[in-house]
Amino acid sequence: MLVYEGKAKRVFATDDDQVYRIAYKDEVTAGNGAKKDSMAGKGRLNNMITSRFFELLADAGYASHFIKRLSETEQLVRKVEIIPLEVVVRNIAAGSITKRLGFTKGEAFKAPLVEFYYKKDELNDPIVTDDHVKLLGIADDKDISELKDQALKINTILIDIMNKMSLDLVDFKIEFGKDKAGNILLADEISPDTCRIWDKETKENFDKDVYREDTGSLIDTYTHFYKKMEAL
Amino acid sequence: MLVYEGKAKRVFATDDDQVYRIAYKDEVTAGNGAKKDSMAGKGRLNNMITSRFFELLADAGYASHFIKRLSETEQLVRKVEIIPLEVVVRNIAAGSITKRLGFTKGEAFKAPLVEFYYKKDELNDPIVTDDHVKLLGIADDKDISELKDQALKINTILIDIMNKMSLDLVDFKIEFGKDKAGNILLADEISPDTCRIWDKETKENFDKDVYREDTGSLIDTYTHFYKKMEAL
Repeated sequence: MLVYEGKAKRVFATDDDQVYRIAYKDEVTAGNGAKKDSMAGKGRLNNMITSRFFELLADAGYASHFIKRLSETEQLVRKVEIIPLEVVVRNIAAGSITKRLGFTKGEAFKAPLVEFYYKKDELNDPIVTDDHVKLLGIADDKDISELKDQALKINTILIDIMNKMSLDLVDFKIEFGKDKAGNILLADEISPDTCRIWDKETKENFDKDVYREDTGSLIDTYTHFYKKMEAL
Repeated sequence: MLVYEGKAKRVFATDDDQVYRIAYKDEVTAGNGAKKDSMAGKGRLNNMITSRFFELLADAGYASHFIKRLSETEQLVRKVEIIPLEVVVRNIAAGSITKRLGFTKGEAFKAPLVEFYYKKDELNDPIVTDDHVKLLGIADDKDISELKDQALKINTILIDIMNKMSLDLVDFKIEFGKDKAGNILLADEISPDTCRIWDKETKENFDKDVYREDTGSLIDTYTHFYKKMEAL
C-alpha cells in the first residue's frame, strides 16, 4: 500500500507496521520542481548510493532508519514520522548561501554550519531560526539540539568517507524522523541529489549541480560517483 | 561634518568626538527603497516621536544612545558603531512573517519572537540565524545573547507605553551600536517607520503600512500617533 509519494521516491507499508519499503523513482527535479525530467537508471543509482551511505554510517556506529537494501531500486527502512525540516550542513560556501549572504563560492567555513529549512513546498522551504522551529511547533529545544548534534556527527563521518575518495563534501541536506519510541533517526536519502560534492583537485561536481546548471550528464556523473564508492 | 547619510537621516560629527548630531529628513521609503517619496513634516514627526520614545525608555530605566532633542528635527546621541543587524521583535503576526512562514495576520505569538536581519542593501537584508551572525563576524555568543535580552526588555517597556494609548505593538525593528567602551546601546530610531502599531479595537494602523499599502495619509497618521503620545 502506497503511504506517500514524493518527487523522487514512493513509500509503501509492509506486513510489519513499523517497517516501510521505499522505491526510488527515475524522476529528477530542481528548483523545488521548476525543472523536471525522467532519467532511466536514476532511481537505481540513488538507491544503491543511499543504501551504501547508510551502511557506511552504520559501520561508523551511527544508526539511521535504514534496515537493508531489497533490490536495485528498493530498500527497507524503519517507519518514522518525518520532522518537517530540511537540515543542511555546510562546510564550504556554495549554492544559496552565496546568493543570500554574499559568501564567495568555494570559501571554507571556520566550522561546519547547520541550517534548518521548513519543509513546505507552497512556501518554497524557507530558512528558519531555532525560535521559528519552536514557534511552528516542529521541535523543542531538546530535539533541536539533538538534530544539530546528529547532523554534525553525520558530517564528520561523511567527510571521512569523501576524503577516501579524494572528494570534498561541500554541503548536504538530510531529514530526520521520529520512530514509535520517540527516537530521532536519520531518514530520507544521502546521494548526489542531496549532497554537493567536489573533486578535491579539479573541483569537478559529483552532484545534482550538473543537472541544475546543465554542465554534464547526471547519469554519467552519478555512475562515476557510485564506482568510486564501490572501490572504497 | 556629515558622517553618514541614510534613507531617513543624516548623522553629523560634533565638537565632542563621542557625540553625534542626527538630523531627520523628510524622505520616506518602503521595500528597501523601491517606493520613495518626500513629505514635508515627516522628519519633524519622526524626530519628535523617537526622542519621546527614548525619553520614556530612560524613564523606565533603559539607557539608549539618546542624549537629548536639539530641535524639531534634530537630536544629540552618543557615538556608537552600528552593529549591522536589524533586530526585529514580533508580538503578533504581520508583514513578512505571514508570507515567509504562513502565519495568519493578527495571530498573537505565544512568546515574543526575536529575529535578526543582516543589514546589507545589496542582499536585501536577509534573515540570519545566530550561527550566520557568528560566521559573518558580526557578533559572538555573548553579544547575541545581550542583543536578544535588550530587545525583549525594550519590547516589554514599549508594550506598556502602547497599552496606555490603547494600541497593540505588533512588531518593531531596532538597531544597536557599540560605544567606545564596548557597551551595546540601542541606537537608530523608534517611530511609526520602524514599528507596526494597531488600534486595539479597530485594528487601524498607526504606522508606515498606510504608506506601504496606500491606505491613508502618512503625515495624518503619524500626527495622530504623536498627539496620542503627547497625551501620555
